[in-house]
Amino acid sequence: MKVWTKEITFPTSKEIELVNITSEVEKILEESEVKEGICILFAPHATGMLIINEDEPGLKEDILQSLQRLIPKKANYRHDEIDDNAFSHILSALIGTEKAIPVKNGRLQLGTWQEIFFVETDGPRERRRVVVTIIGN
Amino acid sequence: MKVWTKEITFPTSKEIELVNITSEVEKILEESEVKEGICILFAPHATGMLIINEDEPGLKEDILQSLQRLIPKKANYRHDEIDDNAFSHILSALIGTEKAIPVKNGRLQLGTWQEIFFVETDGPRERRRVVVTIIGN
Amino acid sequence: MKVWTKEITFPTSKEIELVNITSEVEKILEESEVKEGICILFAPHATGMLIINEDEPGLKEDILQSLQRLIPKKANYRHDEIDDNAFSHILSALIGTEKAIPVKNGRLQLGTWQEIFFVETDGPRERRRVVVTIIGN
Repeated sequence: MKVWTKEITFPTSKEIELVNITSEVEKILEESEVKEGICILFAPHATGMLIINEDEPGLKEDILQSLQRLIPKKANYRHDEIDDNAFSHILSALIGTEKAIPVKNGRLQLGTWQEIFFVETDGPRERRRVVVTIIGN
Repeated sequence: MKVWTKEITFPTSKEIELVNITSEVEKILEESEVKEGICILFAPHATGMLIINEDEPGLKEDILQSLQRLIPKKANYRHDEIDDNAFSHILSALIGTEKAIPVKNGRLQLGTWQEIFFVETDGPRERRRVVVTIIGN
Repeated sequence: MKVWTKEITFPTSKEIELVNITSEVEKILEESEVKEGICILFAPHATGMLIINEDEPGLKEDILQSLQRLIPKKANYRHDEIDDNAFSHILSALIGTEKAIPVKNGRLQLGTWQEIFFVETDGPRERRRVVVTIIGN
C-alpha cells in the first residue's frame, strides 16, 4: 500500500470562475502507479472550493449564477467589515474544499459527465493550490 | 492493508426520490472482512448525489422539497437549452456525489439516526451506480 | 500502513453554534505518528455537521445566519410534527458530516485560514462526537 502526494498549482483570472483540473489529477494518478485505491483532493483555501460536474459552458454559467443566488454577494456580512469577501468564505464553508474519488485499474472512477473543478469566488489570484493524495496498491 | 471495491446498482422509479442504500453498503463491508478503516462511497453521476440522514418518511419529503427550494427547477438556465436537467446538475455539483464513513470493529460508524441515501433528481433511471471502496485492515 | 481511530467528544452550549475542533484533531494526529496519509473526520449525528473555514467571530456569525437563510427554521416541515428539528436534519443532510484532510510531514495540510468546526444546529447537547480516522505511514 502506497501514499502518493503532489500539488497542483494554477492562477485564476476572474473574480468568479470554474477551473477544470481533471487532467492534472489524472497525470498525478498515472505517476503514482496506483491501480486500486482512492484519490483525495483538498484545496487549502477558505475562499475557493471543489465541485464535480459536467464541463459544459452554459452549465458552468448556471452553477456560478446559482452560487450567487444561494449566498448573496452583499448582505451586511460582519466579515465584510474586515475583508470584503464574506460571500466567498461562506460558500467555501458550505460547499467544501475536498473530494474523494475511487481509483480502479489505474483510472479515476468518474462518470461520463463528471469533471473536477476548482471554484474561484475571490479572484483573480496568482496561485491557487489543490493537494492530491492517492492511497492504494 | 486491503483495498476492496464493489458496485451497487439499482433503478430509480420517480423523477425525484431518496433511495436508501445502507444495507447494500453494509453487505459489501461484511464481504470485505475489513475491521478497521474507511469506506468511501462515490456516485459516478452528474444528476444524482449522496446524502446521509434519518430514514423518516416526512423528513425525506422535507429534504426533497428543500432541494427544490434551494435550486429552482426552472430559472432560465443556459444548460436547459441543451438538456432539460440543469436543476439536477447544479444540485449534484453543490451537494456532492461522495461520502467517507469510518469503519471500526467491522461496522460503519454511522450514528443512530444516520442512513445513506442516493438522491435521484433526474429520474426515473434504469441503472444508477454507487462505487463502494473500503480501505483498511 | 496504519489505521488510527480516536473520538473527540464535547458538549455544546447553544442552539446554534460553531465549535472549533482543530487542535483536538491535531493532537490525535500527533499520537498516531502518521507522517503521510489522510485524516477522515466523521460526525455520527443527523442534526450537526462539519465545515472548514476561518475562525473569525464576525464570519462565524455570518455562517450561522447564512445557514438559517438557506434552510428556514420553520416551513411547515412534516418532520416537525414528530420532532421539532427538521431544519437541523435538512442542513446536516445537505452540508454533510464528514471531511477528508491530507497529512504530510505529520501535519494536517490545512490552509492558513482553515480551521475545522463542528456545527451545532440542534443544541445545547451534553455530548457530541467526531470520529477521527487516520490512514497512512
